[in-house]
Amino acid sequence: MRALPQPDRADLQLDAVLSALSDPVRRQIVNQLADGPGDQACSTFQLSVSKSTSTHHFRVLREAGLIKQHYRGTAILSSLRAADMEARFPGLLQAVLQAARHESSPPIAARETGTVA
Amino acid sequence: MRALPQPDRADLQLDAVLSALSDPVRRQIVNQLADGPGDQACSTFQLSVSKSTSTHHFRVLREAGLIKQHYRGTAILSSLRAADMEARFPGLLQAVLQAARHESSPPIAARETGTVA
Repeated sequence: MRALPQPDRADLQLDAVLSALSDPVRRQIVNQLADGPGDQACSTFQLSVSKSTSTHHFRVLREAGLIKQHYRGTAILSSLRAADMEARFPGLLQAVLQAARHESSPPIAARETGTVA
Repeated sequence: MRALPQPDRADLQLDAVLSALSDPVRRQIVNQLADGPGDQACSTFQLSVSKSTSTHHFRVLREAGLIKQHYRGTAILSSLRAADMEARFPGLLQAVLQAARHESSPPIAARETGTVA
């Protein structure tokens, strides 16, 4: 099993983490990893971008320290570095994922009454 | 009093907010605004960048909706849109500011024992 290069926990940089999370495709990847099983193959992600763009997004996430990746045969498996993120930047990842869900949902008042506040 | 253009609360975008916060100078500005009085003149910020770069950073923050700015005479005053941010992305701004403080401090164990974990 060959792991791809990634920063150590102590070297995680807030600039890189926030920049990585500022893209909706990358947040989609992180969100799926947060919800799903530990290791997920890149092919299981339904992303609205080309394969090369998708590969770029995974690399940005790995280099920022948000995910780790390793080969299993020819497949690349990814998993979220949730514990490393929590240790280095407590609460941050959850806050971003929650903000993303908040952004994609209409306000509760609008959903309940059918009007837009 | 002339206010400079800024997005409405409902139009705040997570991409723009996270991208704006991915720069340490911009986080320094946001942090000072969060700690200080409501309106602060740009000249009160001790930033390690040129005036034109500083102006650029304030504009990025304003266009992302993190701060509002208005003229008082020839001075531009800035304030944090903390309530708008909290309404749109609950907990996010605090999590980022806390992460920034966490990043700039050594781990508690290292500070107490003088060793690096």
